[in-house]
Amino acid sequence: MPRFLDIHTGMHDVTPAQLAETHAKDLALQAKYGVRYIKYFYDASTGKIFCLSEAPSKEAALAVHREAHGLIPDDIFEVQEFE
Amino acid sequence: MPRFLDIHTGMHDVTPAQLAETHAKDLALQAKYGVRYIKYFYDASTGKIFCLSEAPSKEAALAVHREAHGLIPDDIFEVQEFE
Repeated sequence: MPRFLDIHTGMHDVTPAQLAETHAKDLALQAKYGVRYIKYFYDASTGKIFCLSEAPSKEAALAVHREAHGLIPDDIFEVQEFE
Repeated sequence: MPRFLDIHTGMHDVTPAQLAETHAKDLALQAKYGVRYIKYFYDASTGKIFCLSEAPSKEAALAVHREAHGLIPDDIFEVQEFE
């Protein structure tokens, strides 16, 4: 399944509790679109959030964010992951 | 230990073998700076590479890239990681 990394900007002053609550909304909805949100990264000092997901398409990944909480990322990239 | 996500842009037409070779240079050098490169993500269609690392500082993470192969990212973010 394709993997995606999205980037939200301007996310200043978000607490870990708010992040967790928002992320929980993605998790509650993701199966509807065949998506799995894997993890996310937050840089409080620049207000950036990066979300890593597996999804059948970019549109499916975005649909989860849109319907779950309406916070659409500024960018989304289809990535290959390497260790 | 702080965790960092960096972004390299303009990395078009890079083969998986070239990525692996370049990454191996980071791995060979990272202990010198107390850094651990964890994984990386490549989007061939936009030429973006994202590298996730643990490092004592942003400068240490960048020092590994600089000395290992000279490919310095365009951005680097100190991130908290959540599942």
